[in-house]
Amino acid sequence: METSVKVKDVIVLGGTHGDEMSGVCLVRKWLNGSPLTAKTCEVIPYLSNVEAIKLCRRYKDCDLNRQFTEENLKSVLADTELSYEVKRAREMNEKFAEMNGSTFILDLHNTTSNSQVCLIVEELDGFSLHMCRYIQQAFPKGVCRIWILGGSVEYGDTRCMVKRGIAIEVGPQPQAVVRADIMDLQEKAVNLSLEFIDKYNQGVCFDSCQIEGYKTFIKIDFPRNSQGDIAGMIHQNLQDQDWKPLTRSSTVFRRFNGDDVTLGDVIDDVGVEESVYPMFVNEAAYYEKGIAFHLTNKVHMSLPALKLE
Amino acid sequence: METSVKVKDVIVLGGTHGDEMSGVCLVRKWLNGSPLTAKTCEVIPYLSNVEAIKLCRRYKDCDLNRQFTEENLKSVLADTELSYEVKRAREMNEKFAEMNGSTFILDLHNTTSNSQVCLIVEELDGFSLHMCRYIQQAFPKGVCRIWILGGSVEYGDTRCMVKRGIAIEVGPQPQAVVRADIMDLQEKAVNLSLEFIDKYNQGVCFDSCQIEGYKTFIKIDFPRNSQGDIAGMIHQNLQDQDWKPLTRSSTVFRRFNGDDVTLGDVIDDVGVEESVYPMFVNEAAYYEKGIAFHLTNKVHMSLPALKLE
Repeated sequence: METSVKVKDVIVLGGTHGDEMSGVCLVRKWLNGSPLTAKTCEVIPYLSNVEAIKLCRRYKDCDLNRQFTEENLKSVLADTELSYEVKRAREMNEKFAEMNGSTFILDLHNTTSNSQVCLIVEELDGFSLHMCRYIQQAFPKGVCRIWILGGSVEYGDTRCMVKRGIAIEVGPQPQAVVRADIMDLQEKAVNLSLEFIDKYNQGVCFDSCQIEGYKTFIKIDFPRNSQGDIAGMIHQNLQDQDWKPLTRSSTVFRRFNGDDVTLGDVIDDVGVEESVYPMFVNEAAYYEKGIAFHLTNKVHMSLPALKLE
Repeated sequence: METSVKVKDVIVLGGTHGDEMSGVCLVRKWLNGSPLTAKTCEVIPYLSNVEAIKLCRRYKDCDLNRQFTEENLKSVLADTELSYEVKRAREMNEKFAEMNGSTFILDLHNTTSNSQVCLIVEELDGFSLHMCRYIQQAFPKGVCRIWILGGSVEYGDTRCMVKRGIAIEVGPQPQAVVRADIMDLQEKAVNLSLEFIDKYNQGVCFDSCQIEGYKTFIKIDFPRNSQGDIAGMIHQNLQDQDWKPLTRSSTVFRRFNGDDVTLGDVIDDVGVEESVYPMFVNEAAYYEKGIAFHLTNKVHMSLPALKLE
């Protein structure tokens, strides 16, 4: 049995990336006359990267969702020497990190990949893993997946402020566009998160269980030419096929000269004896990071029962 | 019978908008070892907005595809006083406009709307209208539409440099992403354009005919609140339904509070007794222009036969 403290506040972040419009529009809606509420805690909708939202870009100077590092948050540099996003991370951390130890973060994201609903969670966060399973079970089979981040690695993402939280990543949606179908999936996932928290806060016990998730073991870049420009694209067989199993013989790229490239052509043998699962296939923001898609393994985790302490 | 001069040069522009990736990737491919050729004329692939392509944004300072105006091209201001795109328009115009009077422009674009292949052409350009019909007939029914720009209005677009040309707009594709299916449609349309020019240059006569096209009669903005932020989104019934007929009772928006909005709610009676046809539905770049979609009428035009003079 795992026990934990009551959740007193839920911060729901939209626009951590300024051109991911479901979160931006939902938070604005909740701030302007259609408040987001829960029975047992306070809910605080909040726009993260205000300048990037104005520009309708992912970020102004750098990716806000990597700036919540200890180094940045404790920086002794004057504000004038810091990028906008580092300053913003410090502002947000001052506002939220010290509220109390019982705050939860829901961070709303979009992707151009056909992820459907993808819940992003740390593997050591038993509370959030239970929440992810609760959300997943309320969607039709195959609509909601759980992407598990490994162990003690900290990415400097927004969840670093309060230690407990998940990101809700929904796609496919182009950058700078809001689609009704994608916003509906996003809003449903948020409402399910709050429903879970209310039940937990009211003393409901969540039984021990198994969850199925995905863990990235390698990130695959596009084929590139000597100038560093991409020399091929996601193969039509792989486009929109996030979470569908691949083997070494699956075609994953088509070079611009017409040649097909298989998965076996781009990775070593390591770990690809069995099926592997692609995610973030053709995510626009990952071109500059050198990522055409992630390759994941399917994993199963046992969760102990969970109850309010 | 309409006659015209031989086409000596075809300029194929990619990256007039820097984040519309099919054109950028195709032009790079043609410049690097897979040349684009025709039998009867020179073909010049060219990257338009070089700085925006580097940034992977639509533009750096302003929309290049509106800067080829007489005012800009003849501006007496020094370069240092001009925006990047005005300077670039002048550079391109110096390079291309004086080549000769027998140059043709193909300008490659993408949209996040479900346009499929949309050929953009001026209604007074009989040569290009014949080309559009030729391209359209080589695609399966319903894949390729012709959008006709009215009369003598000049938009300051790239085609203003040489007087004859079309834009080939293909979607849906997110900004900053390249999709194999969309690139294939784009490349097929380009190859058909060159095939048409070769036939024309070789003396083939194109018979008089009728073409079906679409003409915009109004641009519809999103519902907005008092701060100017959007207060609703494209209704799920309209999303991805470019070119499908609408009537006054069709739902076109869903406000964030859940209320449906019909076409009749947002426009006056003018011109909507019969079916009208939406295009550019949820195009990312048009949010800042205040355009949620275009409403068009279907039109039929008679073309006289066309032959080399």
